[in-house]
Amino acid sequence: MYPIDFDNLINIFQKLPGVGAKTAQRYAFAVLDLNEEDRAAYIAAIEGISRIRRCEVCGFLTADDKCEVCKDSSRDRSIIVVVAYPQEVAAIEKAGNYHGLYHVLGGLISSNKGVFPDDLMIEQLLNRIDESTREVILATSSTMDGEMTALYLDKVLKNKDVLVTRLAHGLPMGASLDYADELTLIKALNNRRRIEE
Amino acid sequence: MYPIDFDNLINIFQKLPGVGAKTAQRYAFAVLDLNEEDRAAYIAAIEGISRIRRCEVCGFLTADDKCEVCKDSSRDRSIIVVVAYPQEVAAIEKAGNYHGLYHVLGGLISSNKGVFPDDLMIEQLLNRIDESTREVILATSSTMDGEMTALYLDKVLKNKDVLVTRLAHGLPMGASLDYADELTLIKALNNRRRIEE
Repeated sequence: MYPIDFDNLINIFQKLPGVGAKTAQRYAFAVLDLNEEDRAAYIAAIEGISRIRRCEVCGFLTADDKCEVCKDSSRDRSIIVVVAYPQEVAAIEKAGNYHGLYHVLGGLISSNKGVFPDDLMIEQLLNRIDESTREVILATSSTMDGEMTALYLDKVLKNKDVLVTRLAHGLPMGASLDYADELTLIKALNNRRRIEE
Repeated sequence: MYPIDFDNLINIFQKLPGVGAKTAQRYAFAVLDLNEEDRAAYIAAIEGISRIRRCEVCGFLTADDKCEVCKDSSRDRSIIVVVAYPQEVAAIEKAGNYHGLYHVLGGLISSNKGVFPDDLMIEQLLNRIDESTREVILATSSTMDGEMTALYLDKVLKNKDVLVTRLAHGLPMGASLDYADELTLIKALNNRRRIEE
């Protein structure tokens, strides 16, 4: 019905997560109403994303070799929070009371989805732990996959001379870390506990 | 927190209607996960939108001077459906039982929003009505602005030798035409009525 150029944009928007035909159409009209300058900014923003890669140390997003957190010499290098996804780093940073380092696994071990330890940045985690590392906080979410991944990491970290803790169950069971409010996150960080056998 | 290139994309997505910080972040990660080819398609789609303009006859979207409907010689040229927005043309086309022409006003007369007849494509509508035009169907929505616009159009079309009808009230009052289901739209088209004084 619409000109092909317009349909192309609707189709592209429909590939975004959770966007159906109606919403995609609404977005396309919004882009149609942009002036030349804003449209150029749009294109530049998408082009810019090709500069983004994973930090070679921790797996977070960066435009350089290392991310801002890994480069920041004021951060406490004796403690590493392990999460599944980059947006969970952003969530904890927003809560604002954690000043250590991070490690982003890039997912969770999952028998359902066929994700195995080798698919995640677990080897990189083991390699970066040295005598300066005092504690590893497992902050994977309290879903089945998150708990499985935490148990696996606890096991492989046994050989290392490092304290392994788990985020406290201030987080509601089954909820995604990404959507937790800041106070709950602070509580969960403060009440972290050893994994019990 | 994120690299500037990534934040740029989040900010751009937040300008889309109804998109907040969380959703924009989710969209940005979706674009990050695209391969080079899909990202190029994305950019091409946004660039392509600059070819889209309004049909010089009816105001619908087109990449040429005239839109597909106006160019289609198989359409019934004796009848014109008048709507406010291009997406309403798409909604009626999807219902599938109308084969006449369209006229897209580009909005509704609104004292609240300060939209006056001169701001809309009303003069173009009057100019395109000739001896071949048998009927003008006013399909503006049944909101206050939509009814106002229909009454105004009915008045200015009085001088023309043409039947002026209004979409039947098969449409629920206050609802947007854009979101009506197809059967309701067909009913509204079939039960169209003269405007009563």
